[in-house]
Amino acid sequence: METLETPQSTEDFYKRDLVKPDGRPMSLYSRRPIAEAIEATNPKHDPVTGMPHFRWHPLRGEWVAFASHRQNRTFLPPKEYNPLAPSRSNEFPTELPLGDYDIAVFENLFTSMNPRAEVAPSEYVPTRPGNGTTEVVVFTQDPEQTLGRLPLSQIELLLKVWADRTRALGATDQVQYVLPFENRGVEVGVTLHHPHGQIYAYPFVPPVPAKMQEAQARYFAEHERGLLEDILSQERSASSRVIYDDGSVVAFVPAFARYPYEVWIAPERRVPSLSILSNEETVCLARALKTVLLKYDGLWQRPFPYLMALYQAPTDGGAHPEFHFHIEFYPPYRTREKLKYLAGTEIGGGIFVNDALPEEKAAELKAVEVELS
Amino acid sequence: METLETPQSTEDFYKRDLVKPDGRPMSLYSRRPIAEAIEATNPKHDPVTGMPHFRWHPLRGEWVAFASHRQNRTFLPPKEYNPLAPSRSNEFPTELPLGDYDIAVFENLFTSMNPRAEVAPSEYVPTRPGNGTTEVVVFTQDPEQTLGRLPLSQIELLLKVWADRTRALGATDQVQYVLPFENRGVEVGVTLHHPHGQIYAYPFVPPVPAKMQEAQARYFAEHERGLLEDILSQERSASSRVIYDDGSVVAFVPAFARYPYEVWIAPERRVPSLSILSNEETVCLARALKTVLLKYDGLWQRPFPYLMALYQAPTDGGAHPEFHFHIEFYPPYRTREKLKYLAGTEIGGGIFVNDALPEEKAAELKAVEVELS
Repeated sequence: METLETPQSTEDFYKRDLVKPDGRPMSLYSRRPIAEAIEATNPKHDPVTGMPHFRWHPLRGEWVAFASHRQNRTFLPPKEYNPLAPSRSNEFPTELPLGDYDIAVFENLFTSMNPRAEVAPSEYVPTRPGNGTTEVVVFTQDPEQTLGRLPLSQIELLLKVWADRTRALGATDQVQYVLPFENRGVEVGVTLHHPHGQIYAYPFVPPVPAKMQEAQARYFAEHERGLLEDILSQERSASSRVIYDDGSVVAFVPAFARYPYEVWIAPERRVPSLSILSNEETVCLARALKTVLLKYDGLWQRPFPYLMALYQAPTDGGAHPEFHFHIEFYPPYRTREKLKYLAGTEIGGGIFVNDALPEEKAAELKAVEVELS
Repeated sequence: METLETPQSTEDFYKRDLVKPDGRPMSLYSRRPIAEAIEATNPKHDPVTGMPHFRWHPLRGEWVAFASHRQNRTFLPPKEYNPLAPSRSNEFPTELPLGDYDIAVFENLFTSMNPRAEVAPSEYVPTRPGNGTTEVVVFTQDPEQTLGRLPLSQIELLLKVWADRTRALGATDQVQYVLPFENRGVEVGVTLHHPHGQIYAYPFVPPVPAKMQEAQARYFAEHERGLLEDILSQERSASSRVIYDDGSVVAFVPAFARYPYEVWIAPERRVPSLSILSNEETVCLARALKTVLLKYDGLWQRPFPYLMALYQAPTDGGAHPEFHFHIEFYPPYRTREKLKYLAGTEIGGGIFVNDALPEEKAAELKAVEVELS
């Protein structure tokens, strides 16, 4: 095979790091060599003047991110303009260059964290510059695709891209936690329908993964086993909530699901992050992920909205043998017609009410037949 | 004044405790004596067979409430039937009896907690019966009213009703925390537009107030002052985020607001719960609450949706001198047209991104003129 670019040492994909005309970094990933002629593009835009910073919430004990941006004023693209499709005109360049590659990652233009932020306003609560990074991950050049309908090889590549971004972002001193996620559907606020996700790289471990890490560390210290390992083994022996299991990767509605159609996907082996997965495990994970996504879309024969989060160990320098990488889905529908709104008890109290039993919802998802191509 | 019912010892309102035909408790509150002839009603319904219980989420360290109810099948009311309006026909009784009273409180029919729940399924995570209570508070008999447009005297009465319910529910051994709240608007999932709120009485202190309590206890132990007292004093001296201040009660957008239009209302005096407020403070709180609600509705000249939560000290037997009662609003809009969706970073990470500065949003709310009638 002709290589225009050095493949990643032991990886079976190609990568090119570029810089957009406005200075933002971009990386292209592909199964095939990436032509050197490809140059990064970006939409025309005014300078982005947001001064991202954090302020400490003293009653909840968490950081709040502040980023006020001026909306773009000079850039008036056609109505159907898609900033995530490859550029086709010089007049209206997009975030993606034209050319042969599979997946693109770039720093978000309207970011709520900025690795170069230097100042924070002085307040009576602690503040700090909004250091960190937010990236956009474009799953495919095809705006009509969905993550679940992508070929298995493309989903495998995406898992490797997430692993590579986690390594790259987590390697900096600044970043303590890397959270890849996908918001899918207008129901969760998505306005661009081109298949894409985001990566937030925080300068601290955010509350949700921090709790997960602490719970797993306590359990590991006490039992010398992983908490999620034992959950997997319990779910497997109960079997009523397991919707996919190939012996290496399991998908299930956990006994304690907060959302009716909540699904977790976890490798059997306790690995702290995606990059530790073997190639065989990555292949299995891609199959499990595609299966869950197609079951979701098959359930009501329509695109199924969700938030999908990938939980890996903090990138704070610790080895984190206790942390068990897994994926969680938070779907906003509780029935075909009814959304689950987060209100009084969830937002105000922090206690979720699930009006469905995980056993019943798992049975619904089990019953959806999917064919992996 | 003729009394058909004993007024509450030192209170200036009347109360009658009733029992609905289906066994659920109900209380009526009024500025005027309540006729003994009034009998509690309820809509016709099948037996409610949900078995509410809690399951422990081991990675997040929180209880999740499960309650699966059969939907009512025999009860087919007219399309415009409002279960919170007073009953007008024997054929379709509502939750409220006909008669002269101001505010009604009753146990929710489709409850996610039940004081009489006795069993919980056995699982590999801890489980427990769904003990606790959920109540509906009907703010007025008039379905066309809104909380903000109610007369000040009615809002004062509502504050006293919330205080009375907190006392009554919190006095049981079962209940460790009482959370009154209002979800307002279809944007937060409200389907009944009759002005009403809910009260959740939990058998434990839920995560959000637990964090508040711990943060305030730590601060109080260290500084011998209240955390919220110091926040109030800082916000008052900065003044840019204070939208109402009568010397006794302050309303402000906190420096660390997670929602663009987040507003807190707090009495200057550190009181752990509503019932400790003096009559004068209650009058001031009613004026502050009405002012904030009218500013919200005046902002865009349309009903402003929100979640409003009233945070009081746990009812766990402790005195909680550290706890400073206050009200928090979580409004779902970030601009006139755009909702703030909770997605990747908020739900997946637990870090809120606010794309507006509290100083700016406070200025908008300050500028809205309101007239208290």
